[in-house]
Order: sequence, then structure tokens, then C-alpha cells
Amino acid sequence: MTEPVVCTTVAQLREEVAARTAAGAESVGLLPTMGALHAGHLQIARRTRAENDVAVVSVFVNPLQFGPGEDFESYPRQLEQDVRLLAQERVDLVFAPSVEEMYPGGTPVVSVTSGAAGAVLEGATRPGHFDGALTVVNKLLTIVDPGPRIPFRAYFGEKDAQQLLLMQRMVRDFNHRVEIRPVPIVRSEQGLALSSRNQYLSPEQAGHALVLNATLRALAGGELTLDEARRRVAAEPEVSLDYLVTVDPDTLAVTEPRPGALALVAAWVGPTRLIDNMRIPA
Amino acid sequence: MTEPVVCTTVAQLREEVAARTAAGAESVGLLPTMGALHAGHLQIARRTRAENDVAVVSVFVNPLQFGPGEDFESYPRQLEQDVRLLAQERVDLVFAPSVEEMYPGGTPVVSVTSGAAGAVLEGATRPGHFDGALTVVNKLLTIVDPGPRIPFRAYFGEKDAQQLLLMQRMVRDFNHRVEIRPVPIVRSEQGLALSSRNQYLSPEQAGHALVLNATLRALAGGELTLDEARRRVAAEPEVSLDYLVTVDPDTLAVTEPRPGALALVAAWVGPTRLIDNMRIPA
Repeated sequence: MTEPVVCTTVAQLREEVAARTAAGAESVGLLPTMGALHAGHLQIARRTRAENDVAVVSVFVNPLQFGPGEDFESYPRQLEQDVRLLAQERVDLVFAPSVEEMYPGGTPVVSVTSGAAGAVLEGATRPGHFDGALTVVNKLLTIVDPGPRIPFRAYFGEKDAQQLLLMQRMVRDFNHRVEIRPVPIVRSEQGLALSSRNQYLSPEQAGHALVLNATLRALAGGELTLDEARRRVAAEPEVSLDYLVTVDPDTLAVTEPRPGALALVAAWVGPTRLIDNMRIPA
Repeated sequence: MTEPVVCTTVAQLREEVAARTAAGAESVGLLPTMGALHAGHLQIARRTRAENDVAVVSVFVNPLQFGPGEDFESYPRQLEQDVRLLAQERVDLVFAPSVEEMYPGGTPVVSVTSGAAGAVLEGATRPGHFDGALTVVNKLLTIVDPGPRIPFRAYFGEKDAQQLLLMQRMVRDFNHRVEIRPVPIVRSEQGLALSSRNQYLSPEQAGHALVLNATLRALAGGELTLDEARRRVAAEPEVSLDYLVTVDPDTLAVTEPRPGALALVAAWVGPTRLIDNMRIPA
């Protein structure tokens, strides 16, 4: 098992990528994360490793994508453990920059915005969240980009459906050379979508959180109407529903729960906000 | 004299750049323009040619940087003449995409914003202008970028001082690999800063427009106070002053007319908006 090289500066990461492509590596894959890696991340890391000659995982808790009342300060940071886990997956490079390295001098003057598409659904409760996430991923894509002759892929989970769609739009709208590869949701045996924030759940809350996936399955299976599904989530103890909607998976426009539509749910379980989604079978 | 290759698609331009670097070209220079090339552009094109193995000039009238009441429809378009002029300067590649090629499906969902820094000075009278200019240049930089091992430069005139500053910030904030090379203002013999919009001036208006440069010179030479300078511009027939300020050249924050400061002027001459600027000698 080879330890990944941990790069803390943009220059160092670029040198490491360039050295590997100069030595014959023919593809580069990037998995952007905020660390606190769980089995969901590791499955994507495994895929990044398998599909690319150079596997890069970034670990950066991005202040721009946290709102004022959110958990930026308390978000779990465990770089040593993350690096150990990524070593087991034979990742080549870990990019773990400081906030000052990513945003020298503070908040960037020029940044990325997703306008109206980033202000609905998750964006409605988290103003600025998607702009922050797009701003940092835009930088990561430019930093890691190995150049015209080397295929470059970036991996995003389908769990953050709105984020995935906006990343795909950014790649197209900004002419990034990267190919976005979506990765299916990883779930616990009981169906809970894996998330770093699941750490915040008490065992009892983790039990209540199962209602999200169970309800999506019932909705996707046609056993519940949208209204019944909403009532079922809302009736679960300690669970407070934010939204449960079905949307067009390409545009995120709200639509009927028809075959092919994407059902999206967001809820607080105790003080912890969770999201999940599921396609309605075509 | 070799004709430049005129590329109308992103893919074609990328292929042409990649073919040249694969054949040994060791640097690439980009001059972004909206066409209607005048002697000011051509001087920058000459420098782009002299300093790079591959010289690229983009000619694209970018709808995003025009406001609702502005001259997008009537902005001069003369690609054939532009290509002839660029051939004389031995430019290798002209990138002249359609609006649909740059913005497939219409206005981009994800775009670039300069926030407060783009809302003052020129931005105050032209809401959205800088965001539009940044959005298209961000795309051009990513499209032309020849990859890690090839030095890449982009050329911007100092005439659009605020634009130059914001482009430099974007390159830093987005980690673009390009080096921005600023190019001094080119002037007519009488001192008028060259601009495509000078085409709109009657001979008489062109005469009145000389007050801008003459006043900046007097201000920079300490012959006029800021208030006297403003009155002088405002007193010129057919000239309506928008702003005449001195700013810190690194931040655009308004400052006293002290040595090293940048004096910026914007005025309408008849219906035509003109800008100019000059450093106060240190």
C-alpha cells in the first residue's frame, strides 16, 4: 500500500499531476470532497482509482458554501484518517489546501453564480450554497486539468442531485474539458443515504431518518401519492419536512410524479438536515 | 502573407491550437476582441504575434456584456475586413464563433460575477456589463488554454482599466494558468484614445472628445484640481460628464489625486459613451 502524496498548495498539486502525465499517465480523475470520508466517498474513490491512471481526491471544507447559521466551524475535519482511508483505495494524490491557499486575501472578488437555478430547492434554504460550491469546484477543475491530450474526469454523487446538475451546467457553460461522471447513491443496509452529517444523528434519530428513503421508495413504487408521501415524512417523530417534490431530472423544473421524474426530499432530523432522492422508474 | 485560419467552433479552435503545440509551438497568446478592429487592436495583435509562437485573436460581439438600451444590434461587424487586417499582422488563428456556439441554448445557467467591484464606475452605468465580459473571457481562456507545459498569455488594453483589473482578479480567483499582459493605451495624434465607438463620432464631436485626454493630462500634471478638471470636461460643447475620479490602481477604491493614482474619466460625446484614463506620475 503506497501512501498518497498530500499536496497543500496549488503549485505542488500541479507539479505532481504534470510529473505523472509526463511519465506516461494517460488519464486523470478528480473526486472533490470536504473530507470526513465515509463508505459513500470511498466507493467513489475506488471508481476514480479504477477508471484513471492518476486518482486525485481533494479534501477542503469550503467556507463559501456554508451559510451564516450553518456548521462550517463544527464540520468534521479528520485529514489523517481521510488520508489513511484513501491510501487503502490506492489514491495517488490528496489535495488538502488551507483556506488561505484557496482564497488568498479572503473572499474572492470574482466568483461563480448559478442565478435562479441555484436559488430553488436546496438553494431556497441555503442561500449562496451552490454559488460557493460552484466557485470552489471551478477552481479545482482548473487546478487539476491535465491539459488537452489527457482525458480528465470528475466524480459527483447523485445524492446531491441539484449540485450534480449545476456542476454539469457549469462544465458546459464554462467549456471545462472535464467529463462529469455521476455516481449512484450509496446507502446503509437499512436504506439511509450515506452522508458526513449522519455522524450528527443519535441512534434513535438514525432510525427516524429511515423514513426518507422508505417514503421515496413507496412514492417511486406508486404506493403513495405525493401528498400522502409528504404526510408520512412529516408524521415521523423528530423529523421536520422541508420539501418533497418531483422534478424533471435535466432542468430541475417541478413536474408530476411521472415515470422518469426525480423525487427529491429534504428534511431536518433533530437539528440535522438530510437529503435524498430517487428516480421514478420509467 | 499567410491567411489566418478562421475557426468558428470551439472544437476546431482547440484542434488548431493542439496541432501547433504538438508540432513544437512553445507559447500561445490570445487577444480577445469584439472585432471592428482599429489601430489600437492591431498594435496589441502585433505584440501578441511578437511574443508568442501561436497568436490567436477572438472576434466575438458578446451579447452578455451589452445592456438592454445599448448598441448590441448596431455594434459594427466586419469580420472579412478584420481577418484581412489580422493577416497583415501574421496572426495564426482567428476565433469567430456564433452566439449559439458560445451560448448553446441561450443565456448560460452558470456564469461569472464580479459583485461589488463590477457595480461601481463603468459598472454603475452599465449593470451586468463586467459580469458579461468576465463570463465570455473565462470561456475563451479555458477554450484556448494550451495546457500545463505551454506558456499562455492574454492581452488586455489599459484603456478599459476596470475591465483589466477585474480580468486580473478573475485569473487569480479562478486559478487560470494564463498570464495577463496589459497593453498601454493607443491614441490618435491629437490624443484621443482609440476605440471602436469613435466610428460613431462626427468630425466635430471627435474634436470635442479631445477634452477628455487634455483634461487628464492637465490633472496628471497638477495644473488642475479634480473639481476644475470636472468643470472643464462638463463645459465642452456636446460633452456630458459621467465621472472623473482618481482611484487606487490595484483596488479601484476612490482616492485623492495623489502620485501613482489612476485618473479615470467617462463621458458621453453626443450619444457616444467614451472612457479614458491616465496614471498620475509617481
